[in-house]
Amino acid sequence: MDDARVRVRDIGEFELIERLTESLPVAARTSGELGLGIGDDAAIWNPAPGHSVVITTDALVEHVHFRLDWTDWTSLGHKMLAVNMSDIAAMGARPHIATIVLGLTGKELVADIKSLYQGLGSLAAMHNVVIAGGDVVRVPNDVTLSVTLLGGVRPGQAMTRTGARLGDLVVVSGTLGASAAGMALIERRMDPGTSGPLLIAAHLRPNPRIALGLVLHGLGVTAAMDLSDGLMGDLPRILTASGVSAAIELDQVPIAPAVRALFPDEFEQFATRGGEDYELLLTVPRNRFEELRAQAATIGASLTSIGRIVPADPASDLTLLRNGVPVYSHQGAFDHFG
Amino acid sequence: MDDARVRVRDIGEFELIERLTESLPVAARTSGELGLGIGDDAAIWNPAPGHSVVITTDALVEHVHFRLDWTDWTSLGHKMLAVNMSDIAAMGARPHIATIVLGLTGKELVADIKSLYQGLGSLAAMHNVVIAGGDVVRVPNDVTLSVTLLGGVRPGQAMTRTGARLGDLVVVSGTLGASAAGMALIERRMDPGTSGPLLIAAHLRPNPRIALGLVLHGLGVTAAMDLSDGLMGDLPRILTASGVSAAIELDQVPIAPAVRALFPDEFEQFATRGGEDYELLLTVPRNRFEELRAQAATIGASLTSIGRIVPADPASDLTLLRNGVPVYSHQGAFDHFG
Repeated sequence: MDDARVRVRDIGEFELIERLTESLPVAARTSGELGLGIGDDAAIWNPAPGHSVVITTDALVEHVHFRLDWTDWTSLGHKMLAVNMSDIAAMGARPHIATIVLGLTGKELVADIKSLYQGLGSLAAMHNVVIAGGDVVRVPNDVTLSVTLLGGVRPGQAMTRTGARLGDLVVVSGTLGASAAGMALIERRMDPGTSGPLLIAAHLRPNPRIALGLVLHGLGVTAAMDLSDGLMGDLPRILTASGVSAAIELDQVPIAPAVRALFPDEFEQFATRGGEDYELLLTVPRNRFEELRAQAATIGASLTSIGRIVPADPASDLTLLRNGVPVYSHQGAFDHFG
Repeated sequence: MDDARVRVRDIGEFELIERLTESLPVAARTSGELGLGIGDDAAIWNPAPGHSVVITTDALVEHVHFRLDWTDWTSLGHKMLAVNMSDIAAMGARPHIATIVLGLTGKELVADIKSLYQGLGSLAAMHNVVIAGGDVVRVPNDVTLSVTLLGGVRPGQAMTRTGARLGDLVVVSGTLGASAAGMALIERRMDPGTSGPLLIAAHLRPNPRIALGLVLHGLGVTAAMDLSDGLMGDLPRILTASGVSAAIELDQVPIAPAVRALFPDEFEQFATRGGEDYELLLTVPRNRFEELRAQAATIGASLTSIGRIVPADPASDLTLLRNGVPVYSHQGAFDHFG
């Protein structure tokens, strides 16, 4: 297609990133110091021998990623950092330092922005992350919050999206669908009952899996990323990056009982397409899985095998099975402009 | 004032940043690894002994910092990186690696966003900066572009805002007011004549003073920053950070002949309040100035002494003089929400 007539929403985020990367001069996209560039959860910069810096950046935009009548400011501050920490967790890295861009209209109450910073600061302090500064800019309409987070990892040791191999198990941490269920409770103004508040908390204040990433790293994980756009949105990115396909057994996807109970017709949809769970998605050779699970258990984290890596199939990167029978074939990744 | 009733626009950017910093737990704003935190052009992170990383982040927002009918996309790509490089230049550091957040509505032409990346990429390649990745997010209304730029500096060698001393000269690089003049030419749809295009270029595609920062660093500069909000907006930040005042001789402020010729009634206003010149503002002991100027000349850069640091005066941090006679007293910094 002719770029001069095509709009961003017509080609979507991933095709756009590919074309933009190609637009850069070679000198502006490759360097001996760049361990890992555009396309993974985070980039890796090797400024000096024996030293690797992991860098990630992510933004939350009002009316796109959050609504101020659905969240409190403290939770929003937590979440803006958590979504970035989750990318660092997925690399098996340790977060260290963050810079913040606050895009504010000026109409916000100072007390609210202080609450935002308290939420941000509590999560930061819990993980020894320091807020180093940033920029406050005026925006005409929509509050825009972006964070850049730097972490450290042993050189050559970061977990990336590119190593999934034929026969590997596909593994997720925790349970899926709680965040989407929490959002549905808020959006539909449902009575949350006794278990609802935990689901709402999963949506508003996700817990980045930093400790888990640090434990798993070095135990044979072949590919890893964090689940921000849902299993069906994110797994294809590992598959594409690794040049393989996957078969997922729907009945093995771990879903919290509360999600099943409150949303009997939708829990599977929430778990596979809901997004924002910020759990880790991994591939690992079958013979390493039990050790991995045992190590995760030492910090109270659960890991569940939900399927396996199969030979690359150009017609379907991701097949969903029920009782071993294919019920759905999927091609292509989630698109934020779709 | 009571934070619960006060809005961000009532207290402005600097007071807000101060209150937000105080809202952070101590553990989230101080660390042995943090060489310099919130409040300077960039933060400094010391991840390992003998190794300092300079970090800066800056955003450009449509309808606030740029209008798409006043700039071309290539220039915008240049500028979004240049404003960040300018912060790195002011520290005397060398830029290395950048991450980008593109907030797009989806309606943009792909060709335009490729032009944006070409402008960004050309400037990056010229300074050996690598674009390591980032995030593309949808925004409802206003295109929002933010960059985080990492650089390197020898530990303990960064130029900061805090060291201006009584008797130091106040020095600027290049000339001031060209960017404001360029913007006025665009905004008022004036005939640019023969010298106008250079002024417009100064506004749309500012040249960050990276080489100059690297040359000056280590030659006795006591304080430094880049001029983004105009002399009267920025100098007070050095004065506040250093606990001193300054007296500036208006007739010594370097202003390009084209700015004087095209705007005979406004050139001084443009030079002192216009902003976006992205020149360096320095303080230096009088006996070091000639050496500094000679070194700058080796890379074709000019330095001009425009005044001197005087004892702290609580009533006026900045006094403007004409022929030695005070004509204006100023207190307080520029505010983006003002």
